[in-house]
Amino acid sequence: MYQGIAASEGIGIGKAVLLVEPDLDFSGAVFAGTDAEKSRLSAAVAEFTQKTSALAETMKARVGERQAEILTGQVMMISDPFMTGQMNEAIDSGQCAEAAVDAVCGLYIGMFSAMEDELMRQRASDVEDLKNRLLAILLGRTAVDLGSVPPGSVLVARDFTPSMTAGIVRENVAAIVTEVGGFTSHSAILARTMELPAVLSVPHITTLLQEGGSVVVDGGEGTVLPDPDAAVLAEYERRRLALAEEKAALAELRGKPTLTADGVKVDLYCNIGGPGDVNAALEATAEGVGLFRTEFLFMDRAALPTEEEQFQVYRDVAARLEGREAVIRTLDVGGDKDIPYLGLEKEENPFLGFRAVRYCLERTDVFRAQLRALLRASAFGRVKIMLPLITCVDELRSARALLEELKRELDGEGVPYDRDVKLGVMIETPAAALIADLLAREADFFSIGTNDLIQYTMAVDRGNARVAYLYSPLNPAVLRSIRAVIRSGAEAGIPVGMCGEAAADPLLIPLLLSFGLDEFSVGAASVLATRRRISRWSKADADALAAQALVLSTEAEVRALLKERIMGGL
Amino acid sequence: MYQGIAASEGIGIGKAVLLVEPDLDFSGAVFAGTDAEKSRLSAAVAEFTQKTSALAETMKARVGERQAEILTGQVMMISDPFMTGQMNEAIDSGQCAEAAVDAVCGLYIGMFSAMEDELMRQRASDVEDLKNRLLAILLGRTAVDLGSVPPGSVLVARDFTPSMTAGIVRENVAAIVTEVGGFTSHSAILARTMELPAVLSVPHITTLLQEGGSVVVDGGEGTVLPDPDAAVLAEYERRRLALAEEKAALAELRGKPTLTADGVKVDLYCNIGGPGDVNAALEATAEGVGLFRTEFLFMDRAALPTEEEQFQVYRDVAARLEGREAVIRTLDVGGDKDIPYLGLEKEENPFLGFRAVRYCLERTDVFRAQLRALLRASAFGRVKIMLPLITCVDELRSARALLEELKRELDGEGVPYDRDVKLGVMIETPAAALIADLLAREADFFSIGTNDLIQYTMAVDRGNARVAYLYSPLNPAVLRSIRAVIRSGAEAGIPVGMCGEAAADPLLIPLLLSFGLDEFSVGAASVLATRRRISRWSKADADALAAQALVLSTEAEVRALLKERIMGGL
Repeated sequence: MYQGIAASEGIGIGKAVLLVEPDLDFSGAVFAGTDAEKSRLSAAVAEFTQKTSALAETMKARVGERQAEILTGQVMMISDPFMTGQMNEAIDSGQCAEAAVDAVCGLYIGMFSAMEDELMRQRASDVEDLKNRLLAILLGRTAVDLGSVPPGSVLVARDFTPSMTAGIVRENVAAIVTEVGGFTSHSAILARTMELPAVLSVPHITTLLQEGGSVVVDGGEGTVLPDPDAAVLAEYERRRLALAEEKAALAELRGKPTLTADGVKVDLYCNIGGPGDVNAALEATAEGVGLFRTEFLFMDRAALPTEEEQFQVYRDVAARLEGREAVIRTLDVGGDKDIPYLGLEKEENPFLGFRAVRYCLERTDVFRAQLRALLRASAFGRVKIMLPLITCVDELRSARALLEELKRELDGEGVPYDRDVKLGVMIETPAAALIADLLAREADFFSIGTNDLIQYTMAVDRGNARVAYLYSPLNPAVLRSIRAVIRSGAEAGIPVGMCGEAAADPLLIPLLLSFGLDEFSVGAASVLATRRRISRWSKADADALAAQALVLSTEAEVRALLKERIMGGL
Repeated sequence: MYQGIAASEGIGIGKAVLLVEPDLDFSGAVFAGTDAEKSRLSAAVAEFTQKTSALAETMKARVGERQAEILTGQVMMISDPFMTGQMNEAIDSGQCAEAAVDAVCGLYIGMFSAMEDELMRQRASDVEDLKNRLLAILLGRTAVDLGSVPPGSVLVARDFTPSMTAGIVRENVAAIVTEVGGFTSHSAILARTMELPAVLSVPHITTLLQEGGSVVVDGGEGTVLPDPDAAVLAEYERRRLALAEEKAALAELRGKPTLTADGVKVDLYCNIGGPGDVNAALEATAEGVGLFRTEFLFMDRAALPTEEEQFQVYRDVAARLEGREAVIRTLDVGGDKDIPYLGLEKEENPFLGFRAVRYCLERTDVFRAQLRALLRASAFGRVKIMLPLITCVDELRSARALLEELKRELDGEGVPYDRDVKLGVMIETPAAALIADLLAREADFFSIGTNDLIQYTMAVDRGNARVAYLYSPLNPAVLRSIRAVIRSGAEAGIPVGMCGEAAADPLLIPLLLSFGLDEFSVGAASVLATRRRISRWSKADADALAAQALVLSTEAEVRALLKERIMGGL
């Protein structure tokens, strides 16, 4: 049994197909003269462009627009006269076309790899893919063709490049396994989009498996099991079917209201990172957007987005939700999200630093533009504005005052907006939780951000593997804090949501129902499962369980109780 | 009015004496041959050694042993055959003695300056001082003599080196002012030890003041005021006298018990960073040690201290306290305290990382040695063991289990220890505060560490100036947290102390008395002032003020109320 990163849930059973990358060694290439090399390059670029555009079309049809964008991005890159100009210059200096491609692409790869932003680093692998396929064309070597694998194939490769995955025929593939790539790599995103079980970053797996050998891949556990015996195979087959049934049962819940076992309606919302996620939210039949992260508007660019640009995006999302609420979080920069042109200084402890609402209240030029855009968008849908990282009442008051000032400004300009637009706060610091009653007097709603709340309560960086054992919502301290916040909201008569990952946690859901959480906001992929989990609990059952859980002293005790009661009941 | 760092409290009024450093330019020096240069160097080193040893004696008599150690350290350094050997080698290569001294010292200065540890960087300025005085001797130039300044002198220099300060005659000096140096520099420490008003790091102050001009220095505010008019001078003179009276009043409290206005006894303890601080604690008549930080034992060395080494230090402190309690905190490594040989990895957010008790529970070899040393020391005085950064009950249980195992081990070896040694926890994370009732069932005592508690509650790095405005114990969230912890301790019948800086805060003291804090642990310099502040409040008055403060919504409102009620009452 080999262990890797669990990148896409599901069980795949099939025969291993080992994908060997073509040999791209060009040390034997001979310089054929400047003009000859340039026309070889130009022909290869043309062929690359034609093939990649076709792949993008296939990808769009089979997987989706967003995935296809990676390939059209490669076409745009190679169409940039600056890049091909650099390659031609290299040829002018006596290099053959292969060496020119290798050198120029290598420059870009080095540049992107050195960047701090993960999305930019991701681009390095896009350029790597582009380089390898250009070289394969120049060298006349055939790239891997995934369109022709037989049904029941478990694809095993060092990595899946965007161009390789475009060729995948979903019906013939049981699972994918790689030696590199993490949970957010192209391969992982693609696997999840295609609902293909996937285990990534299994060391040396391309040499450990036999071509054509029988393999079981568990994408939920991150395990790869070669040569299973009949009993094991039968057990995995049973689990595969159970998962498929579970999926079918979830599909039944599409479009249904979210009700507890005793018929109480709760709101089940979706977290989104941009307008591109609205479709997934609507397809999952989320009842609104509980967290719209606006950072994407500010990232991967060289300067601030204008008010107008932001307005168009917010209006677009609000309008497409057709009357459903959209809780939009104001800029949450800093912490682990750097935006170079904002000129934030490097900090010793960025999670305890100058970030989120702290930044916005100082850089009021940035904050005003965003708040104006949000106000303007509120005329086109049910926009709610949410402030991140609040720690004291003053911050809410300052933001409220600015919002009122901007309303008067818009009044003066005759620009429409929702006069009753709600201003709420994220409860994601221990301070906010401790003064939730004070904040509830002045906020229109709460949303508990468990990711940060756990982090600060437990004094644990959520990205630090060394202390990950302490990072759990089931710690008694965290549970008490969540319960107190929900109570404060209820006493003040304002709605309380939760938009951290914990809102979809099957172990936590009964406790949240007992505490009286009004709104659960989860990732699109978890909407239906969360609806089902909620439907299993009556208030009385949830209260009984919560009463037992809340007297326990340790996370381990709480977890054991919940696991026994919940997994036992499934 | 010029602003600098308030490095030592008090008001100094006098005439400016500008200290010009001797010209150490040796570009005119001519190489007189290898033997001649070597004997010049050797004579200079001998003169340096003799003069510096004499200075150290003066310093020891006038200021104290610890200050004198800086100078004896310089003597040890220049006596190291390796350093003078390097200088002789430079002479062998044709450099004159001055150039040899400059080059070799420069190497050490560069090396020490590059180190991360502040104490090591401090050594760079010690070597700088050594270099300059050796060069002055070689060049025959007179170093500054501070022994001859007239009474009422305000000494103004770019910096005060250890050798310069050794010459200071306390009675003749009204204050000191520098252009460089921070709160923990030699100049600052010396000024506080000699109770000299000091303002450091005032830009260009040596060129801004006139020799012999009248100057007022406010070491509490960090201000330097040249040429004050008669009215201003009178006002400062009044304040200087008031401070002197205050000091005399504080001296009256030496050795007195710490009582509230209605005669309730509270414990007033002292925080210490090493055995060197025990004298100051005893002189200030602290009633015990509420926090003994043990990191110094692990720092500035190349390997772990042995159990025996630690035992001797803990025993020494415990014994010297003569029956007073010594609350000794186990190793609090990580965060902002790096100890290179422990091999801790660089973390994105070290304050939210692998530190303190988390480290000790994993590196049980390190923890065992410290706990065994503490147990053994408990036979020689009233040792209490305190665990830092607790966030859950499991951590306390693991530490307790290890302690019990080690007790059995010592039993087996026939080694004596206090069978009833107390094991307590620092409450310095929001998690610990939230589960204080659970921890109180299993801990023997609490000590609230406000520095970290504020940091995590407010999500503010206490070293980050950009967010310092949020870092205050008077935030309603922090006050509620402190109150809840003290209540939980009281309900469980265990003593609750506070060893953060807030325990000496005059604004916070009445609230802490109202909450029922049992023990205040403060810096030696604050012991008497804290005793006086506590003596001003009856329980009824403190309760009335706390009741008013705890209904306020913001830090600013709380601060304003307390300032008005407390400063008004002084």
